[in-house]
Amino acid sequence: MTSGARLDTNSQWISRRLEELGVTVAFHSTVGDHLQQHVDVLRIAAQRADVVVMTGGLGPTRDDLTRQALSQLSGRALKMRQQSLVHLEQMFARRNRQMPERNHIQAMFPEGSLEIFNPQGTAPGVDLTLRVSDRHKCRFFALPGVPAEMRRMFDETVAPRLLEMIGSSRQHIEHHVMKFFGVGESDMEQRLGTMIARDRVPRVGITVSSATISLRITAAAPDPQACQRQIETARQEIMSRVGDLYFGHGESYELYHAVQRDLLMRGQSLITVEFGRSAVLADWFASLGKTDAYHGGFCFAGPEELAALLDVPTADAYDVLRKRSGASWLLVVQSYPHLDSDASQALEAQPVDLVVVDPEGRRILASPRIGGHPSIIYSRIAKSALAHLRKQIQRGDQLQAESEAAIS
Amino acid sequence: MTSGARLDTNSQWISRRLEELGVTVAFHSTVGDHLQQHVDVLRIAAQRADVVVMTGGLGPTRDDLTRQALSQLSGRALKMRQQSLVHLEQMFARRNRQMPERNHIQAMFPEGSLEIFNPQGTAPGVDLTLRVSDRHKCRFFALPGVPAEMRRMFDETVAPRLLEMIGSSRQHIEHHVMKFFGVGESDMEQRLGTMIARDRVPRVGITVSSATISLRITAAAPDPQACQRQIETARQEIMSRVGDLYFGHGESYELYHAVQRDLLMRGQSLITVEFGRSAVLADWFASLGKTDAYHGGFCFAGPEELAALLDVPTADAYDVLRKRSGASWLLVVQSYPHLDSDASQALEAQPVDLVVVDPEGRRILASPRIGGHPSIIYSRIAKSALAHLRKQIQRGDQLQAESEAAIS
Repeated sequence: MTSGARLDTNSQWISRRLEELGVTVAFHSTVGDHLQQHVDVLRIAAQRADVVVMTGGLGPTRDDLTRQALSQLSGRALKMRQQSLVHLEQMFARRNRQMPERNHIQAMFPEGSLEIFNPQGTAPGVDLTLRVSDRHKCRFFALPGVPAEMRRMFDETVAPRLLEMIGSSRQHIEHHVMKFFGVGESDMEQRLGTMIARDRVPRVGITVSSATISLRITAAAPDPQACQRQIETARQEIMSRVGDLYFGHGESYELYHAVQRDLLMRGQSLITVEFGRSAVLADWFASLGKTDAYHGGFCFAGPEELAALLDVPTADAYDVLRKRSGASWLLVVQSYPHLDSDASQALEAQPVDLVVVDPEGRRILASPRIGGHPSIIYSRIAKSALAHLRKQIQRGDQLQAESEAAIS
Repeated sequence: MTSGARLDTNSQWISRRLEELGVTVAFHSTVGDHLQQHVDVLRIAAQRADVVVMTGGLGPTRDDLTRQALSQLSGRALKMRQQSLVHLEQMFARRNRQMPERNHIQAMFPEGSLEIFNPQGTAPGVDLTLRVSDRHKCRFFALPGVPAEMRRMFDETVAPRLLEMIGSSRQHIEHHVMKFFGVGESDMEQRLGTMIARDRVPRVGITVSSATISLRITAAAPDPQACQRQIETARQEIMSRVGDLYFGHGESYELYHAVQRDLLMRGQSLITVEFGRSAVLADWFASLGKTDAYHGGFCFAGPEELAALLDVPTADAYDVLRKRSGASWLLVVQSYPHLDSDASQALEAQPVDLVVVDPEGRRILASPRIGGHPSIIYSRIAKSALAHLRKQIQRGDQLQAESEAAIS
């Protein structure tokens, strides 16, 4: 990890979880496969923190030094834990393999430490409390580096043990994630004001990923009902401030989910066409699996290729495509901007042509000016296209209501 | 960063660059917006390293503490640098904005430090050497956290200053990146043997991203010619061991670039069809921009939708699509596996049907067994499809050569 061969995503994941549990994260440290450096880093950490969550170094090879470092720091010898050894042997037996001798080390723990059970892999974790001074103890939780194993072990074992440490007043934690699109992070922060202050109860965290803004409400209270009440109050206050930008809730809920929901509610469907350098929309909707809301995605260099395939004049291509596919709506991103392969600077905002063809065959063009960093500009354009489509879908309802009102 | 609100990618990038320059990276440290903790982390770093590269904390707000921490650690007051102030004022003037008072801090440097010029942003970097003891000095390079600014400043200013520190024998650094597909990392390492030993000259680093393996040769020598000779020798040795898996070179060269090259060389072209949950192939080829090698990408839930759109029987859909589009080759991923939205464990290997339709209309089916982590399985499948296609393209040449030999 120190050499940069791999990207560390564990530190971020663990930090978020700890902050949600009410534990402030003050430091991250990364160290290479060097025992003395490993021990030094742990000693420094023990002096400045009450809890240290570690990942990696629990494998069976000589490069894996976490057990030895904990043992050396604490002065407690590594002892074989029979129960862990049996579990290890069973894991190998299930894969019809003989357990190599070197894996024995994975069943060894510093005396006085607890095991952190690993249901998925061969590396159990270590839970060791070190008395640093008369007034200060530090508890180490050592987990494997494999993210899937680490995450499950954190949620199943480390989090409950931490809650127990923190005491009985905050036994329950509930989360609620709200999603927004259509404004930058700083404007959002301004509109939210004190809602996102660090000392607010419940805590509201803001994160941005490719122009989607997430507000994560974390409620900690003696019981689940109190958590839910906190969340509901915060949710209402947030909606009163930025409800116009809200499109749904849930950790991985995105604008295309909101479009799918809008369409299914109305018994309608969509196809998408993307010209140029990306197939983001097609990829997003494909990820939904088979759904009545989506009839397919098309990616061409330009409209001529689409017309050639359909064997119709270019001017008719959108209408023919929509009709043949049987979809209610057609959404077209007419061009994604060219990016230099080594582009690293934000692109100046430039107009991007977005076309919606509605169920009556009317074309509604929008040309929002969109800029941003190369790594996110395509998804920002695609999201702007979805926002344009949603406005038309909702406008359709309004027109419908108006025409019904006129008739009645 | 400590709270997990953002993912740290700078540490990895800087570590790779440092290792390439011959500097071993021993530790990463991350600290929050707390001055005393900041100073403590810098003090620890100064004691254990000769060079510390820092990012972030150079903005104009009260949360930005890097300058103050360096000043406090070194005991050197922050002084205004007139030249930097003028540059700052010019940056604001160019954007037709008045420079706020608080930005003045960005032109202040600890006495005795050097500026690291920032051509893109308002935050110049700081280059400060601290005498830790009679025998040990530590040099700090503080850079802004914005990746694009940081990267350019590292390459333009920090790297040359580091090379100068290291001494005259290694003034030149050259890189060569070779790309491979078709085998796992551990098999690759086994076949490479001592080629990837850390003390080898030139150094060969191995990284894996979504099943593409990169070998990065870093040659350091007194002159560029010597670098090139080192690289050529290493390249030949690598090709003799794993040349069968090689598909091209360059940092961002991927299998779809190799397919584009194969097709353009032969005056041929491709369309792709993806059924199910992803549009990876369409997105990759779209990213190439307008190219004679690619006629478009289609994403449907299943073959029936494709047939309906073309208004032909399902059995004929592939042939009609290929002919109407005018493409030589059609590549179909018949299904991407379903992933649970919260899937975190590797999927068991399962057969995935891949179809190539060749320029004569023959269908060549392959059903490789593919598994892997949810985050990479779709791109692994798409890459396997491209590998299947490339085999057929190259087989086409062989058949052509054989038939020409038979005629002559």
